[in-house]
Amino acid sequence: MSRFWSPVVQTLTPYVPGEQPQMQRLVKLNTNESPYGPSPKALAAIDDQNNEDLRLYPDPEGAALKQAIAKLHGLNANQVFLGNGSDEVLAHVFAGLLKHSKPVHFPDITYSFYPVYCKLFGIDYKMVPLGKDFDINLADYKVANGGIIFPNPNAPTGRSIARSEIESLLSQNKDSVVVIDEAYVDYGTESCIPLLRGASCPDNLLVVHTLSKSRALAGLRVGFAVGHPALIEGLERVKNSFNSYPLGRLAQAGAIAAIEDQAHLEKTSAKVMQTRSKLLSDLKALGFETLPSTANFIFTRHPQHAGEKLYQALRDRGIIVRHFKLPRIENFLRITIGTDEQSGELVVALKEILA
Amino acid sequence: MSRFWSPVVQTLTPYVPGEQPQMQRLVKLNTNESPYGPSPKALAAIDDQNNEDLRLYPDPEGAALKQAIAKLHGLNANQVFLGNGSDEVLAHVFAGLLKHSKPVHFPDITYSFYPVYCKLFGIDYKMVPLGKDFDINLADYKVANGGIIFPNPNAPTGRSIARSEIESLLSQNKDSVVVIDEAYVDYGTESCIPLLRGASCPDNLLVVHTLSKSRALAGLRVGFAVGHPALIEGLERVKNSFNSYPLGRLAQAGAIAAIEDQAHLEKTSAKVMQTRSKLLSDLKALGFETLPSTANFIFTRHPQHAGEKLYQALRDRGIIVRHFKLPRIENFLRITIGTDEQSGELVVALKEILA
Repeated sequence: MSRFWSPVVQTLTPYVPGEQPQMQRLVKLNTNESPYGPSPKALAAIDDQNNEDLRLYPDPEGAALKQAIAKLHGLNANQVFLGNGSDEVLAHVFAGLLKHSKPVHFPDITYSFYPVYCKLFGIDYKMVPLGKDFDINLADYKVANGGIIFPNPNAPTGRSIARSEIESLLSQNKDSVVVIDEAYVDYGTESCIPLLRGASCPDNLLVVHTLSKSRALAGLRVGFAVGHPALIEGLERVKNSFNSYPLGRLAQAGAIAAIEDQAHLEKTSAKVMQTRSKLLSDLKALGFETLPSTANFIFTRHPQHAGEKLYQALRDRGIIVRHFKLPRIENFLRITIGTDEQSGELVVALKEILA
Repeated sequence: MSRFWSPVVQTLTPYVPGEQPQMQRLVKLNTNESPYGPSPKALAAIDDQNNEDLRLYPDPEGAALKQAIAKLHGLNANQVFLGNGSDEVLAHVFAGLLKHSKPVHFPDITYSFYPVYCKLFGIDYKMVPLGKDFDINLADYKVANGGIIFPNPNAPTGRSIARSEIESLLSQNKDSVVVIDEAYVDYGTESCIPLLRGASCPDNLLVVHTLSKSRALAGLRVGFAVGHPALIEGLERVKNSFNSYPLGRLAQAGAIAAIEDQAHLEKTSAKVMQTRSKLLSDLKALGFETLPSTANFIFTRHPQHAGEKLYQALRDRGIIVRHFKLPRIENFLRITIGTDEQSGELVVALKEILA
């Protein structure tokens, strides 16, 4: 604490990311990284840019990357906003599109960074309780609000909702922005991006993506948002009042190549979904109750075993999963889908622990 | 414009960085990049990390990079704060340390991002006029304030002030933070970092550095601040409420290697200073009036020629310098120090233009 801190600083409760342990021989299933590497073309593109030209600033607009994203998703480049990971994108979204006199609405159990942004930017917010099956009921959001944001699929539950439901929400929520955080969309969830194509693009829908999950580039830090050009323009104004050059030359080059290699994404995502399916049945056989997941993680509990004890027992065996000491979910574990081999080690360890 | 923008967005006048033109065969002397490449050890370290592990998140704390910076500068690692370029560091400094009831003070002619941050974060500010020789008079800052920030050397003037003068300011300015932005310090300016060493470290001095200039890594996006641990703690709270992972794996690895290769910095900075000295005398011979510079750029005007015309005439010859259409300095050009060859081309072009 210092008397020189701006007054807001003392009120902050910073986000705590999943740990990045330095232990060797670890089964790391705690931060939803891809168990497979990024597109080899991304590594090659980075290699190609790793030269003396690093002395030069990158393109502050990231025009080529915006173009690649627009092409993949059937949008125009002026519908794309770039950031240093989707966390930075979300920060600018909260500052630039969600600070209004009415509170922004999001689920009570969701990405725990949302209330952190609200405190940083002085945004009023309301947490809407999930249903008893941990599902998002969009009917609960059909009230006056300063914005709506939720992940689809939701984290840490893994549950998703259909695009048609979101369309129905949009048809009734005309006076604030609806932000769909699709960080985990590539494992079986319907994306809302098709709604943004062409002349019928709603003026209040924004979809946020990251390259840290299905594109396997968490170490490179690239995320983006797509939406109506006027929303993007607002985000650009905030970004250009904060940091002109959020994405370096290597990040831009690697991201372009990764975006263009859709086949790599499809192959690795299919493998993750296959492993998820097998893990779900293995866990069921052990008595676990797991929420339906369209993410690269599952959210599971055992009726006879406390979440924290399971978490610690796995950790003692070198297997790291995520546990949240929060009401309603303290008995759940959030487990990233790894390789088949990692899943196998997890199941063996759980058998030992439950025995 | 969109009715969904947060109210502050419409009031913003975003920073406009120097252009990154796509033209080939350009003499690019407009954004103060190093004319020499980064340390070859930095490129090798990046190459070493460019592999499948990019699927994993980086260390959110950047512990190894903080340690390398602390070691170089004789500090403790808890005195170091990291950011995605010094622009992001400065953004967090404004939000976290400079938002108080009294206005933050900075020069009227200085890095033009400072008032942009103030508008973004709703910070009151006062611009203190430079003296008639475009020097910063620290006596003008000895008034009640919510913080003081200036670059040393100042940009775009290139003029610097002695560490002893800043010590004297600190001895009288005990109730707000003093931020010295040392982006260009490695070309002949006295750094204030030695004041931060040991038990006598002032509780209100923060020094900001970038790896984009003398370390020749503008394309990688790394900057840092050093100061009292309590100031750093405040910045960490803001950063962890904004983006947990601002620096990717490649940026951290490259920055560590660059920081450790002090010999490369010294060699390339010495060369830049040599070229600067020659350019100053060449320009004098052409009738230019140049401010004394301890930066990797100079600020110069010709008594008989308007700045904008010179800027345009150089541009027509493929030489890009920076010109600011602002009161008092509209006849100046800010020219980055390039290689001897680039300096030679510049002088030849100016001779033609003046002829």
